[in-house]
Amino acid sequence: MKKSYRLITFNSHSTQEKYVRNMLKVAIIGASGYTGGELLRFLEFHDGVEVVAATSRQYADTPIRKVHPHLQDVDLNFTNETPSDLDVDLAFTATPHGASMNIVPQLVEKGIKVVDLSGDYRFDDIGVYEKWYNLKHKAPLDAVYGLPEMYREDIKDANLVANPGCFPTGAILAGIPLVKEELVDTLIIDSKTGVSGAGVNPTPVSHYPNISDNVVPYAVTNHRHMPEIQEKLQKYGDVRVSFTPHLVPVIRGILTTLHCFPNKDVTPEEILEIYRQQYTAEPFVRVLDIGEMPRLSSVRGSNFCHIGCFEIDENGRLVVVAAIDNLVKGASGVAVQNMNLMCGFSEDMGLEGVGLHP
Amino acid sequence: MKKSYRLITFNSHSTQEKYVRNMLKVAIIGASGYTGGELLRFLEFHDGVEVVAATSRQYADTPIRKVHPHLQDVDLNFTNETPSDLDVDLAFTATPHGASMNIVPQLVEKGIKVVDLSGDYRFDDIGVYEKWYNLKHKAPLDAVYGLPEMYREDIKDANLVANPGCFPTGAILAGIPLVKEELVDTLIIDSKTGVSGAGVNPTPVSHYPNISDNVVPYAVTNHRHMPEIQEKLQKYGDVRVSFTPHLVPVIRGILTTLHCFPNKDVTPEEILEIYRQQYTAEPFVRVLDIGEMPRLSSVRGSNFCHIGCFEIDENGRLVVVAAIDNLVKGASGVAVQNMNLMCGFSEDMGLEGVGLHP
Amino acid sequence: MKKSYRLITFNSHSTQEKYVRNMLKVAIIGASGYTGGELLRFLEFHDGVEVVAATSRQYADTPIRKVHPHLQDVDLNFTNETPSDLDVDLAFTATPHGASMNIVPQLVEKGIKVVDLSGDYRFDDIGVYEKWYNLKHKAPLDAVYGLPEMYREDIKDANLVANPGCFPTGAILAGIPLVKEELVDTLIIDSKTGVSGAGVNPTPVSHYPNISDNVVPYAVTNHRHMPEIQEKLQKYGDVRVSFTPHLVPVIRGILTTLHCFPNKDVTPEEILEIYRQQYTAEPFVRVLDIGEMPRLSSVRGSNFCHIGCFEIDENGRLVVVAAIDNLVKGASGVAVQNMNLMCGFSEDMGLEGVGLHP
Amino acid sequence: MKKSYRLITFNSHSTQEKYVRNMLKVAIIGASGYTGGELLRFLEFHDGVEVVAATSRQYADTPIRKVHPHLQDVDLNFTNETPSDLDVDLAFTATPHGASMNIVPQLVEKGIKVVDLSGDYRFDDIGVYEKWYNLKHKAPLDAVYGLPEMYREDIKDANLVANPGCFPTGAILAGIPLVKEELVDTLIIDSKTGVSGAGVNPTPVSHYPNISDNVVPYAVTNHRHMPEIQEKLQKYGDVRVSFTPHLVPVIRGILTTLHCFPNKDVTPEEILEIYRQQYTAEPFVRVLDIGEMPRLSSVRGSNFCHIGCFEIDENGRLVVVAAIDNLVKGASGVAVQNMNLMCGFSEDMGLEGVGLHP
Repeated sequence: MKKSYRLITFNSHSTQEKYVRNMLKVAIIGASGYTGGELLRFLEFHDGVEVVAATSRQYADTPIRKVHPHLQDVDLNFTNETPSDLDVDLAFTATPHGASMNIVPQLVEKGIKVVDLSGDYRFDDIGVYEKWYNLKHKAPLDAVYGLPEMYREDIKDANLVANPGCFPTGAILAGIPLVKEELVDTLIIDSKTGVSGAGVNPTPVSHYPNISDNVVPYAVTNHRHMPEIQEKLQKYGDVRVSFTPHLVPVIRGILTTLHCFPNKDVTPEEILEIYRQQYTAEPFVRVLDIGEMPRLSSVRGSNFCHIGCFEIDENGRLVVVAAIDNLVKGASGVAVQNMNLMCGFSEDMGLEGVGLHP
Repeated sequence: MKKSYRLITFNSHSTQEKYVRNMLKVAIIGASGYTGGELLRFLEFHDGVEVVAATSRQYADTPIRKVHPHLQDVDLNFTNETPSDLDVDLAFTATPHGASMNIVPQLVEKGIKVVDLSGDYRFDDIGVYEKWYNLKHKAPLDAVYGLPEMYREDIKDANLVANPGCFPTGAILAGIPLVKEELVDTLIIDSKTGVSGAGVNPTPVSHYPNISDNVVPYAVTNHRHMPEIQEKLQKYGDVRVSFTPHLVPVIRGILTTLHCFPNKDVTPEEILEIYRQQYTAEPFVRVLDIGEMPRLSSVRGSNFCHIGCFEIDENGRLVVVAAIDNLVKGASGVAVQNMNLMCGFSEDMGLEGVGLHP
Repeated sequence: MKKSYRLITFNSHSTQEKYVRNMLKVAIIGASGYTGGELLRFLEFHDGVEVVAATSRQYADTPIRKVHPHLQDVDLNFTNETPSDLDVDLAFTATPHGASMNIVPQLVEKGIKVVDLSGDYRFDDIGVYEKWYNLKHKAPLDAVYGLPEMYREDIKDANLVANPGCFPTGAILAGIPLVKEELVDTLIIDSKTGVSGAGVNPTPVSHYPNISDNVVPYAVTNHRHMPEIQEKLQKYGDVRVSFTPHLVPVIRGILTTLHCFPNKDVTPEEILEIYRQQYTAEPFVRVLDIGEMPRLSSVRGSNFCHIGCFEIDENGRLVVVAAIDNLVKGASGVAVQNMNLMCGFSEDMGLEGVGLHP
Repeated sequence: MKKSYRLITFNSHSTQEKYVRNMLKVAIIGASGYTGGELLRFLEFHDGVEVVAATSRQYADTPIRKVHPHLQDVDLNFTNETPSDLDVDLAFTATPHGASMNIVPQLVEKGIKVVDLSGDYRFDDIGVYEKWYNLKHKAPLDAVYGLPEMYREDIKDANLVANPGCFPTGAILAGIPLVKEELVDTLIIDSKTGVSGAGVNPTPVSHYPNISDNVVPYAVTNHRHMPEIQEKLQKYGDVRVSFTPHLVPVIRGILTTLHCFPNKDVTPEEILEIYRQQYTAEPFVRVLDIGEMPRLSSVRGSNFCHIGCFEIDENGRLVVVAAIDNLVKGASGVAVQNMNLMCGFSEDMGLEGVGLHP
């Protein structure tokens, strides 16, 4: 048996006493959305942490299981606590961009470690943030970009980690080896995302009759994740990124198709080898053999990123494909991975599960 | 970290030595289908077992990850071993009905415990089996019906457990309290199942353009799971079961709608109380409050069964709804639950995960 | 080429003059929803009518094609006209229940024929309406229930036709022969509907991540269509109806599964014969052979109702299955069929198209 | 009422005599697949033709409605006729590549006009065909490429028309204006197709649990439609095409996303104007305003192609998006359009229907 906290909720009829000493106390701020639900799903099965607060203004005092129906055994209610109310070691801020910048500084000041899931702390260049998010940043802070495959060591020492966007995760992981090897100067990234990426609130674009049996390109040339992908890949070399996302009739998952023209003759086998070397020690990246193709079901519900394809056509175009679960490796899973790094847990703790195929 | 066997596959690049003493050795016979994939998914994360053989005639010598793409870290190949080759403590026979009866007796004779996932050993009355499966049973054996909520104590002592059918699991769990309380003499069970229940092999009925955006009733009055449901519910009282399954455009999950006319005045609250009492101590059954409705996403990928609704209409008709994942609580999950009971593990070991919502 | 009005919109660059003499002038009140879009789709290809007004408060002055993207060639804007503004021969009121009763009387008084798509005029018994819709009816009027298979001759003479509900259409057509022949006293109707039945406005229940890969029973014992089904079937004999709808991940279509216990021995062939006799001359009902099953794709986008199955199980339960497109035979198609009858057109004019399979 | 032939099938109980003089007699060879079903759906409602033969070796003597369940009123059986048996004016060969070359020459020699839906006659350069289809072409013939927007006048005079592939239709229509204006030298075409494009026969890739909730790139750098797109676009200028298709969980429809870098400064408005000029008189191409996006539902079941987007990003990348129904404008609809041109009918006869949205 893994974890005292969880155990008790599973045996709620027993007389066993609660055993929660030495657990890391964490809060989830904005816990009623999909990323909040996923954080709870992972943290409830994490041996080293105890969720002591899950906040939601809309659902304050409502049992969590009424909003997240899969969490029947979680014996917590949502609360309406503010940052100043919280007595925790670490907080996840699953709040919208523009809102996080109002909350994160108070938490950091109180000595609470923070993993922020919004876009507010992702950019090195505040000007880029302010242009693309069309907001004045009120409270810039030093933060580490929370992609462990880029900044593992920095994350370990960070007090504030900016969790990456969902599209950037797959796109950056697919792009790093090519940029690092100076093989490309332009990437065309054509991504296909499940609808859960649009969040828990109903909108016309997420209305079943509109998106079922359909494919919808959106923010075709001006999605906020484009400058994020570009800023991070430019750490590895000079590259321009053109990015277009499409909404597809899928609940979870992002499939990223990266098209590029390498500037010298390479073979698929050589490209594969570059990726293998880059990711050989990564706990959550798997590089597939030539002839295999990443699939959403292989990573559904899991923290894995699968990368593969590596085919080259007659015109010299190379295609690399990456698959992630947008709510996990693209949001809540990597947030837990970051917490593990920040707090000295084993990096994959609570995240061992594989994809739900089929 | 949970389990030595799994650990090693996760750290395949390390020099750490394999540590597998005291693990239960298990085999999965017929491991290339969906139920085989699910057994592997659960057993790879189970602290007490080691999978030493996964057989498949079609894929002998092929790495498991080529067939089950989510199991990238499983370092096993399918084999073509026969029962006489196997040196294991327990075997799962994920073989079709008619095939299991050729394999199971040899395993049992060798002293191997068996959980059989076919229909071959589910019936007390061989005549019923032979009529509905249109087969002569060559090798009847004593077996315990593997629904822990019915036969937990018998399963603990069993050498051969007959894993229930997917439809019967939800239908029987929804029906037991009503039959036991002598409230009904006829049940109309209208079930809606995901397509994975039809197995891994493509057929016209599972062809995407035929089942997407569609609902298909099938085996409307003659599905083999009807006599199974009826035989088991009749252990609790006199009842006739009318059953109709529908294929719906869903990957996983069975939603069972049970319609009946109680023979005396009851209120939804009284019905709820009967269900609560029946299932209060069950690790994998959750009875929902009135006003809540079981959902497939709440149990997707998990071993839970959610039961709820309990509404009664003006004509006195009562409706009870149950939701399971057909590949888990309806197949491989309960098979692992049975193994846990048979081998002295904690009943929920390896099965703690909750549903993947959304 | 069929129709002068349509022709012109198709040849908008030509200098051809508009030729609209002798056309029936129609208005669609509340034209921005799905039923409004479907009315436009049928009426634009109808040889005998001209749509002169399509109203929408929300989209007044917006080109129709901005809301209904398939109607690129319709050169009309939505208007905000009130009943008193309209100079038409016939109006479709695609307005919500409670709203129609404020509009229909003015139209009827002006001598405009009306097909009302709301529930306001469907019931003979106002008390039943007021109880189930929880509204006081301000303006009861004589109306004919617009199911041509029941009231064809009355519809021809009617000034006000109350278009049936979507669930009642399939359920009543499936039920009539059984009730008329006095074979049953109780019907259990378990229906599965596509999400477009919930309308064009996004809600949590129509949010893609909530309904994709899911099945959701709702209004399990208290749906407003139950008393409508019951009142109409009771014209044919004494019968009680128990009705439960389920939302399924389908855009369009209702599959109705009717379960009942005939009060005497009958064979599937006898049942088939009763249905054949009832519907032999119907332009839009097709009774399928035994061994065939109605499918949503067979009727998708069309005005047809397919009825079939007729199997009987060991307990004497009979199953009849009906399939319709909820937006067509369940709403806008039958509305046009009613218009055709009221105005002396051929009954199938503009409605000849068959289902979109696959 | 439109058509004598159809009328009779709709009034099968009447004594009205069959009136089929002056109708074009057509045969559909290979009529049991999805393109055969769509040809029947359009031709049954076409005023000028009579379908006198629909062949299928597999289903010879079976009523058409048993295979195409939406065509309940078609009173024809499949036949096993060979080309020499046929006495028709025009034949559609809905046969696989490699099979058409064995049938088409005999038909042409008999003086039968032919629209071939396979790839066998699409290429000007036989060498390209033989390389990409990996076949020796046994019977090359003069054929006109059946994209009316390219070759309308030639099609009118042709005896053999090679119907375009499904991907090329959207890709070529999206590409023509750019290549003709010499704005681009490289096109990256990332297409998303519904599963019906894979045909009527079940395969692992069309198996519902494999493709639902998934996105699958395939033939990433070597799809046969790439050289077809390239050969046709090169009629307008020098261009290289890189093409990757993805299978998405959609029944019908292809959404084509074309990425390119124009070689001079242009604005979206200028691009729009170029497309408007190219397609202004086309009966089945609609160019959408800037700010609108082509949708599959707008063209579902119809012969229309919608083209739009025209956005340009900071890196100078232009995106053009096209939507078609792969079975209609991508196959059977354009085949009927070609027949209309070849036989002197109005070009849109039988094809007037708009998309089925939602």
